[in-house]
Amino acid sequence: MADSDMFKNFKEHSVAEFFKKNRQMLGFSGKVRSMTMIVHEFVTNSLDACEEAGILPEIFVQVEELSKDSDHYRMTIKDNGPGIPKTHLARALGQMLAGTKFHRYIQQRGQQGIGGSACVMFSYLTTGQPTRAVSCCNGRRISANIGIDFKSNKPIIEDIGEEPTLETGLTVTAEFKDVRYERSNHGVYEYLRRTALANPHCAITLVEPNNERVAFPRSIEQNPQKAFEIKPHPLGIGTHDLLEFAKHNKENRRISAFLQNTFSRVSAGKVDELQALIPELDFKKDPADLTWNEAELIVKSFSKVKWIAPAMDSLVPIGKTQVETSFRNIFNPEVLVVTERSPKVYRGGIPFMVEVGIAYGGGLVSAEKRGEVMRFANRVPLLFDNGGCAITETIKSIDWKRYDVKNFDEEPLAVLVNLASVYVPYTSAGKQAISIEEDIMDEIRFAVMEASRGVQKYLSGKRKAHEIATKKKVVGRYASQLATDLATLSGKKRSDIEPKIAKIIEEKYASEPGEEEETGPAGESSKKEDNPDSEGGDE
Amino acid sequence: MADSDMFKNFKEHSVAEFFKKNRQMLGFSGKVRSMTMIVHEFVTNSLDACEEAGILPEIFVQVEELSKDSDHYRMTIKDNGPGIPKTHLARALGQMLAGTKFHRYIQQRGQQGIGGSACVMFSYLTTGQPTRAVSCCNGRRISANIGIDFKSNKPIIEDIGEEPTLETGLTVTAEFKDVRYERSNHGVYEYLRRTALANPHCAITLVEPNNERVAFPRSIEQNPQKAFEIKPHPLGIGTHDLLEFAKHNKENRRISAFLQNTFSRVSAGKVDELQALIPELDFKKDPADLTWNEAELIVKSFSKVKWIAPAMDSLVPIGKTQVETSFRNIFNPEVLVVTERSPKVYRGGIPFMVEVGIAYGGGLVSAEKRGEVMRFANRVPLLFDNGGCAITETIKSIDWKRYDVKNFDEEPLAVLVNLASVYVPYTSAGKQAISIEEDIMDEIRFAVMEASRGVQKYLSGKRKAHEIATKKKVVGRYASQLATDLATLSGKKRSDIEPKIAKIIEEKYASEPGEEEETGPAGESSKKEDNPDSEGGDE
Repeated sequence: MADSDMFKNFKEHSVAEFFKKNRQMLGFSGKVRSMTMIVHEFVTNSLDACEEAGILPEIFVQVEELSKDSDHYRMTIKDNGPGIPKTHLARALGQMLAGTKFHRYIQQRGQQGIGGSACVMFSYLTTGQPTRAVSCCNGRRISANIGIDFKSNKPIIEDIGEEPTLETGLTVTAEFKDVRYERSNHGVYEYLRRTALANPHCAITLVEPNNERVAFPRSIEQNPQKAFEIKPHPLGIGTHDLLEFAKHNKENRRISAFLQNTFSRVSAGKVDELQALIPELDFKKDPADLTWNEAELIVKSFSKVKWIAPAMDSLVPIGKTQVETSFRNIFNPEVLVVTERSPKVYRGGIPFMVEVGIAYGGGLVSAEKRGEVMRFANRVPLLFDNGGCAITETIKSIDWKRYDVKNFDEEPLAVLVNLASVYVPYTSAGKQAISIEEDIMDEIRFAVMEASRGVQKYLSGKRKAHEIATKKKVVGRYASQLATDLATLSGKKRSDIEPKIAKIIEEKYASEPGEEEETGPAGESSKKEDNPDSEGGDE
Repeated sequence: MADSDMFKNFKEHSVAEFFKKNRQMLGFSGKVRSMTMIVHEFVTNSLDACEEAGILPEIFVQVEELSKDSDHYRMTIKDNGPGIPKTHLARALGQMLAGTKFHRYIQQRGQQGIGGSACVMFSYLTTGQPTRAVSCCNGRRISANIGIDFKSNKPIIEDIGEEPTLETGLTVTAEFKDVRYERSNHGVYEYLRRTALANPHCAITLVEPNNERVAFPRSIEQNPQKAFEIKPHPLGIGTHDLLEFAKHNKENRRISAFLQNTFSRVSAGKVDELQALIPELDFKKDPADLTWNEAELIVKSFSKVKWIAPAMDSLVPIGKTQVETSFRNIFNPEVLVVTERSPKVYRGGIPFMVEVGIAYGGGLVSAEKRGEVMRFANRVPLLFDNGGCAITETIKSIDWKRYDVKNFDEEPLAVLVNLASVYVPYTSAGKQAISIEEDIMDEIRFAVMEASRGVQKYLSGKRKAHEIATKKKVVGRYASQLATDLATLSGKKRSDIEPKIAKIIEEKYASEPGEEEETGPAGESSKKEDNPDSEGGDE
């Protein structure tokens, strides 16, 4: 074959064509999973929008079966959020990699600008129909049919209507084939149940194909503290990142001002420290003139300076009380320990934090699944791809025997892990597994170990108590004989001796457990320690 | 917050920006893995190019450590392939989603047009350096420095040199940080070892950072049969696919001709059958006028007609003999069974086939890893993300006890699975795991079960033989006493009786194992059966 032949087929492709060919990378593989992905994408967008606009979220999800034998459904997802303005509606739903979230350092559920458009694509691919969107925003009710032109990755918008309204919110209705409704562990019902668990401020209604109406009411009447956008932290910023910021910098004429205004925790004092570390670089220079080598020097010196940790309040965990309440509602466990770690930083100056809840016994004894792991990222349940996820892998790597858990998969245990971060490193665009990154796995490990110790104390206390009770019972058996013997030997009355022996036994076997009685009742939370473990190097 | 504020940050992003932010989706997470991914991307491109041009591949990989404390390396990958013409060089390496492979129905290792550019991106992100490419193609030697403009996803090409040459081939040299060389299970060495295992026609040389030169010589002096491009098969074609083909159709004025010329196995007779199934549709109509509903009718009728399977010879497996030779070289196992299934079709009319090799005992008894799974897709080793992969999941789901394997993870077993297909549904752009798809998992299951039965026969034969030998020994112990007793009872000579008893025992316990002696010696392959299992519905 002539070499030129091989390249006559050289072509360029749009990101929409890429995901059309590789739809499994968006999570569209398997009928049940595909349906859950659709709900997942629209509901996460709705929650983000509501919270950012300061609205208590109310989500309505309806799944209608249009034809049984071709797996044909109509799905509606409606929220009471701020809606999407007319100018952005088509691109928000009909163009991949377009949106408000991609470039921001803020804790949100969505972060790619792909999800909504991916569902519009999947609807069109399986039914040939556009997606109907009704957006009530800024006093106008805009309705339109939206599709994607795959070749150009541009939206197709048709049948636009517009009228005044007093409402706000977005309603999306689309038809799908190759999907299926099931009340299984991977279905829409379970997804929404877990969403409610981690988002107690959200009211969710689900209408199932059989017309059954399921309500997940809110248990908290206010939104969580609002996440806010932060500047990146110097620790973890790469040379390329620094140069990108310098390239886009317009306000600052000097490197010193640029560093202070671009990154968090960089004060004038810190700039002096950095300057002292790199005397050969003129910090009065224009940031635009920074070379790769100079930027590399700055990044290296970042790691030599002591920094204040990134703003903790930019991260919004589910919260200790809420995890406890939710777990108690679901499992009514015998013991429950919730741990919340302080925030840490990883690559790119990205703050993140991990919270963990471990429940043992009680309702879990009769639960279908033993050793259950409930994964969340920014309060979003992760139901799929548990194999390659940092959460699952970390939990697998823990030596559970050290915590008196003989076999994790066979114990009445449920472990909840939530990763809160301004950026979650998902393994694929389907956003169902967290990439195996050391810093993140370390934090998950510390948090799980910390909570495990709480459970262990309870379990070992319980075991001890059981052992003591057994001993007492055994010794007690001889008390009567001993009293008779002592009476004979000493000539004293048996009835005087026996109560004394009983008292000695009572004292002996009552005091011991107290010695290590740190064991709390069910629901007691462990104290927050930053370095919970002697074996772990926690930076 | 005013709603308009939320959308003032609405932006569009290029696919290069997407993967820059989400580099872990390309497999760039972890230092050792990142280095392996670089070798993986360039070596698969090299092998594809050599095979397509009919050249016996010779690959040279060099890893140089430039600085220990900053994980700074230079990597060179050189092949003897056809090279890339000047007109395409920059885009092939400096633009994502550009290439020759994306849209073709042909079994190749690469299929996305992302890998090479992803490495160029990763080099620039970590070192600020462009990638040096030297392409000897069509008598010209083109050298250039190549980078990517992230914002536009367009190549940046600099320092272009050109001179005449008699050679062919591509050499890529780039610097990287955030990578690490290690001779571990996930490192470059293991990756190349497995590549050699599955590509015996390929000669590979690796120069390690300590200057050690490792050769993986070729063991076959000719390329495998050439994969060729095929037309899609009607089974599995979706409505949307059919309409896309109809839209791009130029040569055919009638649906009847369009169907025959666009899809494989559609003859005039088959068109008549389809027409009979859809009398309401005029097959003389212009394909461009097909509506969604009409296309859906055609797709539905596809599934009602009996089709010849897709061209099997479009798929090129590693091959039975080769898998046997490789396994024997590596493991020297006690028993080895290789199974090759006939091709099947899945979504989109995509033919695929599965081959499986199972080795037991021998060198595996002392191997570090027990129950090892070696995954391949189109002869490319998959070293990462085993958790969510269809191969691993299928093997986990098999009831190994049925095959006399007590605990898969503790037995001296190695299972090789290769999926050959014109399209492999990877779970992410990093291409390390195959998506959980039913059709594919079924085939893997049948193939593994078929091979397992071969292993089981051997194991149960061995166990039987052991049991018989034990029985014989036990019975033998009484032979002498029995001879004495019989001599006393019968009055005959003991020396006459004893040999007769011995002969009876010998005959008795020699014949039994023969009754089920289908057990082959190590290396015997199972016969190819299309429906190996009574329990499995093989379509």
